[in-house]
Amino acid sequence: MSKITWPAGTLLAPVPPALISSGTMEKPNVMTAAWTGVIASEPAMTYVSIRPSRYSHEIISKTKEFVINLPDISLARATDFCGVKSGRDIDKFQSCGLTPLASSKINTPQIKECPISLECQVTEIRTFGTHDMFIAKIIAVDIDDKYLSDKGAFNIQKANLLAYAHGFYYTLGRKIGKFGFSVEKKKTIRKRRQRQAQKDTH
Amino acid sequence: MSKITWPAGTLLAPVPPALISSGTMEKPNVMTAAWTGVIASEPAMTYVSIRPSRYSHEIISKTKEFVINLPDISLARATDFCGVKSGRDIDKFQSCGLTPLASSKINTPQIKECPISLECQVTEIRTFGTHDMFIAKIIAVDIDDKYLSDKGAFNIQKANLLAYAHGFYYTLGRKIGKFGFSVEKKKTIRKRRQRQAQKDTH
Repeated sequence: MSKITWPAGTLLAPVPPALISSGTMEKPNVMTAAWTGVIASEPAMTYVSIRPSRYSHEIISKTKEFVINLPDISLARATDFCGVKSGRDIDKFQSCGLTPLASSKINTPQIKECPISLECQVTEIRTFGTHDMFIAKIIAVDIDDKYLSDKGAFNIQKANLLAYAHGFYYTLGRKIGKFGFSVEKKKTIRKRRQRQAQKDTH
Repeated sequence: MSKITWPAGTLLAPVPPALISSGTMEKPNVMTAAWTGVIASEPAMTYVSIRPSRYSHEIISKTKEFVINLPDISLARATDFCGVKSGRDIDKFQSCGLTPLASSKINTPQIKECPISLECQVTEIRTFGTHDMFIAKIIAVDIDDKYLSDKGAFNIQKANLLAYAHGFYYTLGRKIGKFGFSVEKKKTIRKRRQRQAQKDTH
């Protein structure tokens, strides 16, 4: 193997093909954006980068709010469609069979069908070439309760989130390990396996 | 189903568990960071958020350069290890069997074993609570030539990239569709299938 060098590009992957909802319950809009990420843990800060030509750009610039909704694989077609079509021409919620759901802390509706929604309040808008970056505080996280365990833990694997990489949509595949697994003590691993075995026999 | 609301959190997924390399060929360092993303397409802009306590923070603040290296699944253990251990205490390149490889446009080495590396030049450092955000220009993209087709297209699926979601590492799974598949004309789909069928019989 050897590495070849390409000019500058945005080949960062995988990223979340997020459904960014904006507007109101009466007139909701949605667009797909993969240029998003976490900026800080405390306070929880995020961003989404949007081209100034987009209808969502116009709405979010005014309302200073948006919701990052993470689609599952059943929403792959809707996710692609909302990245291609403009809300200026059609009602994408209606075209895609999406349901606007009132958010808990902001006026912008979230998407009911998405397993995870992050309610965001814009703190700053910055221009970087092609895109404007909407930096925002995450002020609430809404999750579908059908993915919660009895103990209240969120099972993200069951949520079947969609991934995006270099122009293609993917499922998430096999779980490889938990954060910290490379330094886990053998005793801890043995204990966890015993617990799992007990669970499986009950 | 119904949605329940949690307080603010960073539940954005999947994200890339990127190996951020820094330093020099003689004294390279690496840390894992999933708080990264694309900010703009043209110029290609990205960022990585790093806690001020991290050794990489100290190095990148001085050199104003870093490389975002995307690990494949064979590097899962190294990726986890580099997120847990500090380069102040050990040489993580050596501990993990990683090879520093000279970059094409910057002095910071990339990681030879990663299928994709993005060479980045810091343009700005911003503080957001727990993390400092290193905003950067991507000035070159290095890819492993074994994933290139005869025509020079990069097959990202073969690269077996690692994904991170809510505390767990995953493989990428099944390919669901290409960007734009939801509005593709039936004629285009038919033609592509014919091409594929011809390919398969030759």
